[in-house]
Amino acid sequence: MNEKTLDSAAAGAASVEVVTAAVLVIGDEILSGRTKDKNIGYIAEYLTTIGIDTKEVRVVSDVEDEIVAALDALRSRYTYVFTTGGIGPTHDDITADAVAKAFGVPLDFDERAIAIMRERFGGAELNEARMRMTRIPRGADLVENKVSRAPGFWIGNVVVMAGIPSVMQAMLDEVAPKLRTGVKLLSESVRADLREGDIGTELGLVAKQHPDVMIGSYPFTDEAGGPNTNLVVRGRDPQKLAAARAAVEEMLVQVRAALAAKT
Amino acid sequence: MNEKTLDSAAAGAASVEVVTAAVLVIGDEILSGRTKDKNIGYIAEYLTTIGIDTKEVRVVSDVEDEIVAALDALRSRYTYVFTTGGIGPTHDDITADAVAKAFGVPLDFDERAIAIMRERFGGAELNEARMRMTRIPRGADLVENKVSRAPGFWIGNVVVMAGIPSVMQAMLDEVAPKLRTGVKLLSESVRADLREGDIGTELGLVAKQHPDVMIGSYPFTDEAGGPNTNLVVRGRDPQKLAAARAAVEEMLVQVRAALAAKT
Repeated sequence: MNEKTLDSAAAGAASVEVVTAAVLVIGDEILSGRTKDKNIGYIAEYLTTIGIDTKEVRVVSDVEDEIVAALDALRSRYTYVFTTGGIGPTHDDITADAVAKAFGVPLDFDERAIAIMRERFGGAELNEARMRMTRIPRGADLVENKVSRAPGFWIGNVVVMAGIPSVMQAMLDEVAPKLRTGVKLLSESVRADLREGDIGTELGLVAKQHPDVMIGSYPFTDEAGGPNTNLVVRGRDPQKLAAARAAVEEMLVQVRAALAAKT
Repeated sequence: MNEKTLDSAAAGAASVEVVTAAVLVIGDEILSGRTKDKNIGYIAEYLTTIGIDTKEVRVVSDVEDEIVAALDALRSRYTYVFTTGGIGPTHDDITADAVAKAFGVPLDFDERAIAIMRERFGGAELNEARMRMTRIPRGADLVENKVSRAPGFWIGNVVVMAGIPSVMQAMLDEVAPKLRTGVKLLSESVRADLREGDIGTELGLVAKQHPDVMIGSYPFTDEAGGPNTNLVVRGRDPQKLAAARAAVEEMLVQVRAALAAKT
């Protein structure tokens, strides 16, 4: 991959800003395999669509020091960090505590969050456990939760969302219009109708000749049950992308012809 | 969560060894959202079953320095690191290069791997691209690939596997019998038939009274379409687990009675 080349090329052009992100999934249930994560792929695809490059993902356990360490490593490195999980009403929901600690701010019962929860939970229903969900690091903005009300929040470059996919997705929709986005990474797929091992060397040469795009190769089993390959060309400049795609297609024609000549 | 308490309690008993792991997923296609990862959940659940605790997961891009940095961070901290992806025949398959660099060993064309590939690919088919898959860090053991032959490998505490789920799963089956495993983490689920916010405080008290188990709370939408909660009690000592489960069930009876009395 020419990730670095691409980024530095992009950064070199004043008009092209690369906005990056990391995803931090918090939860023992993911690490034990009991719950299969559905958020990483969703967030990654969503961010790609709006012009933000996900550069790293981490999954950590419900241990405060682990969450703080991951937050600090990621927020210093990427434009945004999106966390999922650990903002519910139980003792193992400690994401707000960890974020407050990472930012060195108090974790207050937040009047705005209390007002939202009061609308949903009358009287005694707004018990100690549900009040736990109104603890928001001081200085954070709330992220509205249209599904089940208890809000997420946004502090510095860290966006804290729920782990339940439907709630997380609603929160991401809330914050998306407010995010700084870069020039969208464009992507084109070419089906090779060849095995990955038939084209590896030739594809590497094309990649070398087109350093401003990234070319990925993804083997798959096609509808006839045979080994096949998808080639994906990605880049921010439409013209360079088109040139690389044409080069990939020309290469495929040549390799197919060479293989046919051998048989 | 009482992860630390549990681990130190477990470590304190000479007969109880805690074996840990990290999963390192390598690939731009996961970070772009184009491919949805299916390996993290599979590996996590598999390792839990055989008595290995997955403590962390990372997804990094196809950039050598990123892979090396993640490998070094994870292999120094956990008993095992399992990687997926980046061992195919194309230019963006650089996992073997990164592992060799992390361990400071040469990346040789491996005679054992060449013999395996020769069995599958005759004559000219074993081209430069496919030969790329025979480059194995010096000193590594091969991990057999019963699906498509090109092997994975195992060096130090790092197990390098393919990214294609069926191939990864076959490789994991190969290495599993050779892994050091700890005492299996046992797990029991209790369906609350209450909303998570109804029981948060009481559940926290039970968790405090049973520091040698971990108690997780996972909201879900039940078959009637209402909010419900699964409580999961996990631990290595069957008696402590049973005691904690009983305490959770007793707590649920009390909370249900208290809520019924209010209505």
